[in-house]
Amino acid sequence: MTQSLNRPDEAPRTSPDTAAAALALGDDALVLSHRLGEWAGHAPVLEEEVALANIALDLLGQARVLLGTVGDEDELAYLREERAFRNLQLVEQPNGDFAHTIVRQLYFSAYQHLLYAQLADGETEFAPLAAKAVKEVAYHQDHALQWTLRLGDGTEESHTRMQRAVDALWRFTGEMFQPVPGLDLDQEELQAGWTATVTTTLRQATLTVPDGPQTGAWRAGAGRQGLHTEPFGRMLAEMQHLHRSHPGASW
Amino acid sequence: MTQSLNRPDEAPRTSPDTAAAALALGDDALVLSHRLGEWAGHAPVLEEEVALANIALDLLGQARVLLGTVGDEDELAYLREERAFRNLQLVEQPNGDFAHTIVRQLYFSAYQHLLYAQLADGETEFAPLAAKAVKEVAYHQDHALQWTLRLGDGTEESHTRMQRAVDALWRFTGEMFQPVPGLDLDQEELQAGWTATVTTTLRQATLTVPDGPQTGAWRAGAGRQGLHTEPFGRMLAEMQHLHRSHPGASW
Repeated sequence: MTQSLNRPDEAPRTSPDTAAAALALGDDALVLSHRLGEWAGHAPVLEEEVALANIALDLLGQARVLLGTVGDEDELAYLREERAFRNLQLVEQPNGDFAHTIVRQLYFSAYQHLLYAQLADGETEFAPLAAKAVKEVAYHQDHALQWTLRLGDGTEESHTRMQRAVDALWRFTGEMFQPVPGLDLDQEELQAGWTATVTTTLRQATLTVPDGPQTGAWRAGAGRQGLHTEPFGRMLAEMQHLHRSHPGASW
Repeated sequence: MTQSLNRPDEAPRTSPDTAAAALALGDDALVLSHRLGEWAGHAPVLEEEVALANIALDLLGQARVLLGTVGDEDELAYLREERAFRNLQLVEQPNGDFAHTIVRQLYFSAYQHLLYAQLADGETEFAPLAAKAVKEVAYHQDHALQWTLRLGDGTEESHTRMQRAVDALWRFTGEMFQPVPGLDLDQEELQAGWTATVTTTLRQATLTVPDGPQTGAWRAGAGRQGLHTEPFGRMLAEMQHLHRSHPGASW
């Protein structure tokens, strides 16, 4: 069922570098949006059902714009092989419990907010998208920050679950500070800003900032080069199944 | 994990009749929202991922307002037994294929739009909610109508799938025209308006209007009395699992 109303226009031509960058940022948004979508019907309370769905929709909107500059958004989302995805390994990590999802949100939204803020101030063709997205991400970051404080400084159980998530996801944060192919970012400013925001938030939440290395299962930057962790393959198979099961179908 | 930010205030007292009506309308919205949420990550194209998620969010918002007038929205959503739900059997029917979901949307949105339009013009305490919701539902109905025309008058395969869905769900439509406990609606106007809208749309889509009885597995109105079809039990178990697995927990 690949028919679609108001089919988007032909994708504009972009330089290879710009396309590579759009893929990286678009895949981050697409993959995290699908992970958050897995909470649909399973959120702990109705209010969070709404909040997580809204965040997922913001990210999906960003993904559609970014992938649309590279090619057909549906072909890129549903027909690409795992190794062709350029998202950070952080965003492909499974939801785990609610605390795990919140820490993933905290780590990523702090990064994405700083990244889009730089792009919004820049001259590249990403500036318009970034100017709009940075406002959405500010809400995502505030949502993650409020929950981090509440759960980290909450009950013994919530604190334990948060610290476990903080430690488990820490090794996936180093990749965020590798250069994004095609983007001329101030990586030092990005890393300094992220570290200040996250460590301050964690300490306010009475959580311990990990001192382990910020490098994932593979060498840092692996996701951007198409090397993904094992759970991503399962998520992708699930996400692409319906579309692939009707190859080229347009019933 | 039943903590929630911005916890809603105490629910206002309402008359038993009003509470019964709020439950009926709130459960329609809650249950259909969860069914649509099951499409998350499985929509045929990204554009529909966005459209279905937005419709699900509108319905969830309506459900929260309506259930909030009766009591604690989370207790009502996650801790009620199947027999205590007052939704129409139509909205609890499984998604099936995309055509099946679209026909369910066509049948229900046509009903909900007429119902909220009457409530918006009325004097009851539902008028403010209805005035806002009727605008949202107008979009839901337009979305379903456009897809019905496109798929019904599309390929042989899409036409076949649509007709199958039209016939399969028809028997669940009669319940919509039974009086809603606690609501003083013009049922004849509701049924006449629904029949005109739906039959006109189906014919425009080159689909055949079923001539079978509009009564479900149980006697018409069964869902409003707490009698639900077998798939609803499974959906409810899924929907309530996480919340029930932490009884009273607030980690």
